[in-house]
Amino acid sequence: MIGISVIGYGYWGPNLVRNFWEAPGARLVSVCDMRPERLSGVQARYPAVEITASYDEVLKDTRVDAVAIATPVSSHFDLALRALQAGKHVFIEKPMTATAEQAMRLLDEAERRHLIIGVDHTFVYTGAVRKMRELIEGDGIGDIYYYDSVRVNLGLFQHDVNVLWDLAVHDLSIMDYVLPVQPLAVSATGVGHVAGEPENIAYLNLFFANNLIAHIHANWLAPVKIRRTLVSGSKKMIVYDDLEPSEKIKIYDKGITLNGDSRSGDTRYQMLVGYRAGDMWAPHLDMTEALSLELRQFVQCVESHTAPLSDGNAGLRVVRILEAATRSLAERGRVVELGEVRRAA
Amino acid sequence: MIGISVIGYGYWGPNLVRNFWEAPGARLVSVCDMRPERLSGVQARYPAVEITASYDEVLKDTRVDAVAIATPVSSHFDLALRALQAGKHVFIEKPMTATAEQAMRLLDEAERRHLIIGVDHTFVYTGAVRKMRELIEGDGIGDIYYYDSVRVNLGLFQHDVNVLWDLAVHDLSIMDYVLPVQPLAVSATGVGHVAGEPENIAYLNLFFANNLIAHIHANWLAPVKIRRTLVSGSKKMIVYDDLEPSEKIKIYDKGITLNGDSRSGDTRYQMLVGYRAGDMWAPHLDMTEALSLELRQFVQCVESHTAPLSDGNAGLRVVRILEAATRSLAERGRVVELGEVRRAA
Amino acid sequence: MIGISVIGYGYWGPNLVRNFWEAPGARLVSVCDMRPERLSGVQARYPAVEITASYDEVLKDTRVDAVAIATPVSSHFDLALRALQAGKHVFIEKPMTATAEQAMRLLDEAERRHLIIGVDHTFVYTGAVRKMRELIEGDGIGDIYYYDSVRVNLGLFQHDVNVLWDLAVHDLSIMDYVLPVQPLAVSATGVGHVAGEPENIAYLNLFFANNLIAHIHANWLAPVKIRRTLVSGSKKMIVYDDLEPSEKIKIYDKGITLNGDSRSGDTRYQMLVGYRAGDMWAPHLDMTEALSLELRQFVQCVESHTAPLSDGNAGLRVVRILEAATRSLAERGRVVELGEVRRAA
Amino acid sequence: MIGISVIGYGYWGPNLVRNFWEAPGARLVSVCDMRPERLSGVQARYPAVEITASYDEVLKDTRVDAVAIATPVSSHFDLALRALQAGKHVFIEKPMTATAEQAMRLLDEAERRHLIIGVDHTFVYTGAVRKMRELIEGDGIGDIYYYDSVRVNLGLFQHDVNVLWDLAVHDLSIMDYVLPVQPLAVSATGVGHVAGEPENIAYLNLFFANNLIAHIHANWLAPVKIRRTLVSGSKKMIVYDDLEPSEKIKIYDKGITLNGDSRSGDTRYQMLVGYRAGDMWAPHLDMTEALSLELRQFVQCVESHTAPLSDGNAGLRVVRILEAATRSLAERGRVVELGEVRRAA
Repeated sequence: MIGISVIGYGYWGPNLVRNFWEAPGARLVSVCDMRPERLSGVQARYPAVEITASYDEVLKDTRVDAVAIATPVSSHFDLALRALQAGKHVFIEKPMTATAEQAMRLLDEAERRHLIIGVDHTFVYTGAVRKMRELIEGDGIGDIYYYDSVRVNLGLFQHDVNVLWDLAVHDLSIMDYVLPVQPLAVSATGVGHVAGEPENIAYLNLFFANNLIAHIHANWLAPVKIRRTLVSGSKKMIVYDDLEPSEKIKIYDKGITLNGDSRSGDTRYQMLVGYRAGDMWAPHLDMTEALSLELRQFVQCVESHTAPLSDGNAGLRVVRILEAATRSLAERGRVVELGEVRRAA
Repeated sequence: MIGISVIGYGYWGPNLVRNFWEAPGARLVSVCDMRPERLSGVQARYPAVEITASYDEVLKDTRVDAVAIATPVSSHFDLALRALQAGKHVFIEKPMTATAEQAMRLLDEAERRHLIIGVDHTFVYTGAVRKMRELIEGDGIGDIYYYDSVRVNLGLFQHDVNVLWDLAVHDLSIMDYVLPVQPLAVSATGVGHVAGEPENIAYLNLFFANNLIAHIHANWLAPVKIRRTLVSGSKKMIVYDDLEPSEKIKIYDKGITLNGDSRSGDTRYQMLVGYRAGDMWAPHLDMTEALSLELRQFVQCVESHTAPLSDGNAGLRVVRILEAATRSLAERGRVVELGEVRRAA
Repeated sequence: MIGISVIGYGYWGPNLVRNFWEAPGARLVSVCDMRPERLSGVQARYPAVEITASYDEVLKDTRVDAVAIATPVSSHFDLALRALQAGKHVFIEKPMTATAEQAMRLLDEAERRHLIIGVDHTFVYTGAVRKMRELIEGDGIGDIYYYDSVRVNLGLFQHDVNVLWDLAVHDLSIMDYVLPVQPLAVSATGVGHVAGEPENIAYLNLFFANNLIAHIHANWLAPVKIRRTLVSGSKKMIVYDDLEPSEKIKIYDKGITLNGDSRSGDTRYQMLVGYRAGDMWAPHLDMTEALSLELRQFVQCVESHTAPLSDGNAGLRVVRILEAATRSLAERGRVVELGEVRRAA
Repeated sequence: MIGISVIGYGYWGPNLVRNFWEAPGARLVSVCDMRPERLSGVQARYPAVEITASYDEVLKDTRVDAVAIATPVSSHFDLALRALQAGKHVFIEKPMTATAEQAMRLLDEAERRHLIIGVDHTFVYTGAVRKMRELIEGDGIGDIYYYDSVRVNLGLFQHDVNVLWDLAVHDLSIMDYVLPVQPLAVSATGVGHVAGEPENIAYLNLFFANNLIAHIHANWLAPVKIRRTLVSGSKKMIVYDDLEPSEKIKIYDKGITLNGDSRSGDTRYQMLVGYRAGDMWAPHLDMTEALSLELRQFVQCVESHTAPLSDGNAGLRVVRILEAATRSLAERGRVVELGEVRRAA
């Protein structure tokens, strides 16, 4: 049995508690939060689980093999580093850290101590995203042309990070999982509409080799909730709408076909390209709760000492992009090479 | 009666012919196209209308007061200039010209000769867009925070202009009409997926004073057709979906409210901002065909010698942005001040 | 060449004229209407086509091989009978006649004279309905469990026939084409909300052998337009939404599976049936204009002396159901056996 | 404090437990179920709540003021009667009883003993349904023309009651609350597609005075989930779509206007009625969990000895309709006057 302590019982912590409670192979030892009123809720629901306001106590507790950190981003690095130094495996809510530098130091520490880092890229464990990866990997989509995502809604302005760290992080973790290549550079533009606060609307471009482009629109100030991703390839096109109750993934047998040179003649309406429109298909998806799968897998990884699907390296790759994007935001969309971030680190 | 000749009978020309044919105060004198097989279609449907392959003939025809140009963009300037020089009023399909310089020369020519230029910004005449302008002008929306538009579908790759000149031009003409201010600078990124062809997917940022930002996603390679615009303001938010059969405009009484400083306490989930969620309202819209309204108005403007809603100046403003955006595209999103274009011109 | 005369140039007549004009093998000889102001529209658009207010003249015209009748239902029988007696083939707008008796007399007359009757069941020629038939015929759907259709919108109250004759007629013609069996009895309920006028909302049940049931909700007084049909079978289920721009037909690999007897134990939540949820699939549909296909086919049938897909027998079967339904409506849903209608006739 | 015992911990019981646990003024004393494996779940989550398999024990427990019955319908009457006889107030899951006769006997018993009966018509407590009632009561809708509801999905075939008792019961409870009048008669048709099992698809007509008609399509065998109700009146029309995340109620300022007699002239396309199309409006709705409101209100009603919104009389009215509908189903849609049921009872 892997002993677990959940650190932080705010918005997401209760989900970790509920799922670790039910994960085979895991034993939920304790929940730690500095706010006593939060902890009383734990006690009422899970009387067998200890509650504590002392992180030191958790780190000293020999029954605890791994900590799951669900606190604000700014505290991730410090809490995770101390856990690793105390010999605990670490599961960290997304985004992994506030800087790529911090993520790299955690990776070094974990490697030295042979400890596992899991990063909570929950979407990677959904049936929809796993299906997308399967399609792309199996070459059902062909060469990827672009990845475009709109993730907007009204609400939950955060004031320590801009909207990319809150919303685009999901798309970045999905892209990290489903795309066969990594971006080379990014640019981002955005605006904060509340004085003194970070950007609440942002547009992020990711540049890849081979004419692949990606774009994310992240927005806390939209009247409607939209979660829609288009992934177009040379063979098929995917629409992934996470708000659809069941048909979240639709695959369109549509595209263009090159007709050789046809520039002679009518220069306007003559087409160099032809259009192909075939069937649409919505595969049945596994609807298991993603977090449940993810935490079970983390427990197994700790047991078997293997890396989770969303490990610390995935966490680092995503943070590196967010950091570069934030730098670009401040310079009205200057292209920031991802090499720059690495070097800076 | 205003005598009209329609120049170019390709994709859009038949719509001009049909609507000028029915416009009160207009007399459709002739249709001119270099392709005889196109003209035979005119003859069958409108036996009273003359057909010709000679533009010179049209320009010499004293019954013709105005020409309506529906040819490829690259020919707009030359055809329009010759028409103005022949003393004809001019109606030009969007975009007005291939460069801002050309548009300015047409404006000069028209001014000198006291002739009218109308530019076919059709959307400006739809019930939906007119309603948006009315709402914004009447201060129903408050300070505008952002304007975001997605205009994507599969098809009609053009090979003389990139996708912005074909699709974003609509959004630019709408913004020109409904927003109270003009952009100061633009940046654009995009990719062409067919070798040697212009960009078929592009993202355009427009920067304004006062934290207003605009963004357009234009795409010829999408599996689904989307025409959706979000306009958020400090009082209300608009969703304009042009594919909705009747409720194209929805106004949400939603937004944020500032709560003073609340940073003390829980730094993560404490909100500086509150959320307001009220009713949604979809006003009944005038569903008159926009092109019909536009052409009737153009005829009246020629008669009364007044400027149409979408005159040559509107045409120029839009072309200026497209030109700057194209320059930015070539430099992976470098911010191009719109002053640069003016100076260059 | 088959010479055609279109009779009645009201709401639907112009569509017949346009499509016969373009149909290979057809020659549109004349258009007949008693309203001169309607005919002037024909003359402007189709100067080569003769116009006349005299039906007698049409019937005497030896260039006319077939008449296409697009007048109010109450006049169908008389006009069609006179045409047949004059030796003309007949194409009749749906519903074929006002009574089954009339339809049978037309069929007799046509048979005796070796003339063709086509009935304008336009939906039968759409890509969507043809695909449904193909699926059902190919046993892709299994045993049909039910056919349920909602066809509602605001508008066009008619005062000579109730809403079933105007809207449900479409569903009846579709069912006649796609279902392998004919209904045995019907019942209908409905209400007229305008005093002295026929029912503007009606619900029609159709009873078949083998536990197949069908139901149609037809309504002129609905705030939204709905055109949705569910067809469930033992293997697959179809949703046909005619308002979808392209994915009009969706096939769900869903259904129930029988688990043997499981009544023991918890009587409430124990299930006798299991549920199967698989992929959804939207086949690409032929988007050719249905009326164009239908009229081309009618012309070919006249030429080759074969029966069209929607011939007079199909017309009779649909009218027979409408007549029985109207009788049931008047008796608050009494079940009317379709044999009764036949006998009455 | 009102002491509560929840009877039955199957599908719905956990929701009652959770909400009574949190209801002010209530004390959840015990949960009773005959299945020990269900009760262990209660103990883990609510260690302070007693569990028991003995209903007698519950009835003897003086700390229990009211029982909440969430068992199969067939057991409602017996359990409720015994509770009333033991002096307990009763809250019963819908439908209240298996026959109107049973409901009347419970009402008599409660009246004699001055006890409260609440029936779990949950929808009556939703923001959407309360808004509909407010609109109808405030005469915003005008004279009601019809009420049409589609409530279909795949699943949960029950084998003790037909689909009307499971799904249409919701619509009947909503109609009972929002409509100003009661139905006079019903008819229903339907089919069971599993041999020996009750109807899994049914269509229910309700006849009222004054040309008001209602219709419900209830279906366990549909490929898609639909929950849509149309309520049309002489002034406005409502679309209530319970699957919409926030805009569940849309009010259309649409309708018909009578134009006096216009039958002269063109008999076909001349309209006796005109059409009015105005704005659509989606009021902001209270999104409080309906069951929470309902249980709090039940506790208050017990305390203050007043009747809940959905009391035993409402429960009886709904059961009376279900019983009549089931009788009609067996006779292929014979109209059953609701007086018949009363008399039979």
